[in-house]
Amino acid sequence: MLAAIGLDLGGTNMAAGVLTADRRLLYAVRRPTAAQAGPAAVLGRMADLLRTLLEQARADGLSVAGIGLGLPGLLDTRQGISVFSPNTGWRDVPVAEPIRRALGLPVYLDNDVRAHTRGEWHLGAGRGVDHFILITLGTGIGSGIVLRGELYSGPTESAGEVGHQTLVPDGHLCGCGNHGCLETLAAGPGIARSARAVLAGPDGPASRLWPLYSVDPNGLTAADVGAAAAAGDSLAMGVLAEAGRWLGIGLANVINILNPDLVIIGGGVAAAGELLLGPARREVAARAMPVPRRHVRIVPAALGRDAGPIGAATLVPELREELMA
Amino acid sequence: MLAAIGLDLGGTNMAAGVLTADRRLLYAVRRPTAAQAGPAAVLGRMADLLRTLLEQARADGLSVAGIGLGLPGLLDTRQGISVFSPNTGWRDVPVAEPIRRALGLPVYLDNDVRAHTRGEWHLGAGRGVDHFILITLGTGIGSGIVLRGELYSGPTESAGEVGHQTLVPDGHLCGCGNHGCLETLAAGPGIARSARAVLAGPDGPASRLWPLYSVDPNGLTAADVGAAAAAGDSLAMGVLAEAGRWLGIGLANVINILNPDLVIIGGGVAAAGELLLGPARREVAARAMPVPRRHVRIVPAALGRDAGPIGAATLVPELREELMA
Repeated sequence: MLAAIGLDLGGTNMAAGVLTADRRLLYAVRRPTAAQAGPAAVLGRMADLLRTLLEQARADGLSVAGIGLGLPGLLDTRQGISVFSPNTGWRDVPVAEPIRRALGLPVYLDNDVRAHTRGEWHLGAGRGVDHFILITLGTGIGSGIVLRGELYSGPTESAGEVGHQTLVPDGHLCGCGNHGCLETLAAGPGIARSARAVLAGPDGPASRLWPLYSVDPNGLTAADVGAAAAAGDSLAMGVLAEAGRWLGIGLANVINILNPDLVIIGGGVAAAGELLLGPARREVAARAMPVPRRHVRIVPAALGRDAGPIGAATLVPELREELMA
Repeated sequence: MLAAIGLDLGGTNMAAGVLTADRRLLYAVRRPTAAQAGPAAVLGRMADLLRTLLEQARADGLSVAGIGLGLPGLLDTRQGISVFSPNTGWRDVPVAEPIRRALGLPVYLDNDVRAHTRGEWHLGAGRGVDHFILITLGTGIGSGIVLRGELYSGPTESAGEVGHQTLVPDGHLCGCGNHGCLETLAAGPGIARSARAVLAGPDGPASRLWPLYSVDPNGLTAADVGAAAAAGDSLAMGVLAEAGRWLGIGLANVINILNPDLVIIGGGVAAAGELLLGPARREVAARAMPVPRRHVRIVPAALGRDAGPIGAATLVPELREELMA
């Protein structure tokens, strides 16, 4: 059976697997990226992992058509180069050619969030949808856009930065250098910062986050806030609702601009579910224009952490054609 | 020579003309819409005007391939129906079929700002550009989006509402029902409102807008502000600069989301030129992501009021093919 290998490279881990034409992700595996060892060492680890998967797949009788890679940061997909990635510290690193030579298979690459988007599109929450936006909420906010049944990357492959829309012109400094981006308000570090601010106030000691906060305020994470909110902590629920409202304002803006059929919310922070998405949906209902608002659906991502390797594998054209047939 | 008739219907006036394959707009004419007489009367006036133009064109030996109409509000372009237009008060008015019968020519329609966008694309500031946004600043803010060399309307023909992005969540009420939209900050009425607010303060009496303002505060328009600013009035220049900064925040958001090659600024308020666009450009430089920011150009529209009828005429496929050849 036809198959392709997909690998999603992150700043901390790489995730890989073999996607088959009958829509199964096999041999899913996760390894440390160890980016501090430099690009050559990381490329070597990637090649080793891909070789292991290729041997397993061939031993099981699969016909592997190629390798798809989801890479962080800015790419030149035609030249197969990682142009700039803050997560891995790479600048102008050729990726496709060394992997192609090491494995003897064609190599395709795309930005990690676009690979994620392809995964949800071909096998997840976006199946059969021609106009949608996937938004990943994690340490940052990423997004992939599908319009008229095609990934939209923009002329310099930098479209989709919905997390870097300014919502508070004189707000917190963002990693991008701007102030008050959606990312400062609704991504993980922004949620943790909001929680710390509320915990420092009069309601702090009554929260179940208080012990964590009082021992190590800066160690508090969005995941801690999510867990406390899921357990009914009202302070944590309020912090998530506030992040959800900002997310909803950002979503309403994107919905008014792009008129999508669907918005898919993924990423670690999205695990908070309706505690975050409920307030976001209410804000969209109050702010977006009537026609696009009535048309759009806002749903959670379906594939979880598998979206990366699945989407990367769908970069291989032979497999993608089988999946879309 | 091949030609097509284009008509741009506004709430106050209709503008029409005949566009030839050698890129000339002939017999350009403007008539009152007189919307209060109701859709049947307006359609009758449109048919009369189109008939006059058709006869002139034929008398001059032109071969008229069809009629393009730019209409305000929400359309069903396939059915040829004006679904809803606040400007004309129309709801579910069939337009294409009555005009086709009256003139005996094929009729094509599109939203007015998209027609405007087509005009700038085929004959104006957007010639040869595959990814751009046209933003019209007037009583409201409209926009047309071209992506990958095609107009992008969205699945329910409601994409492009860049004027209805929320920039101040608890800001002024917008005509759309939301609060703090870009339109409330950078369109004509918002500029007039800002000027009134500053004129009411201690610097008011020193402004050349003071006589106008003190006689009839609510009669003050964005055009008055633009004229005073052009004459060097510092209060008026400050008001335009503030509107320009908000415009720039909205542009930076759109540039980060869509990564366009070009942003074209048109509409009556854009007549303020660099007094508005200068501050907008500086805000984009400070806020947009480096790669899309370095790639994009921000330019004024080239066709002025002719963009509507020119763009409407390019809806006729035979003429458009000649123009793109």
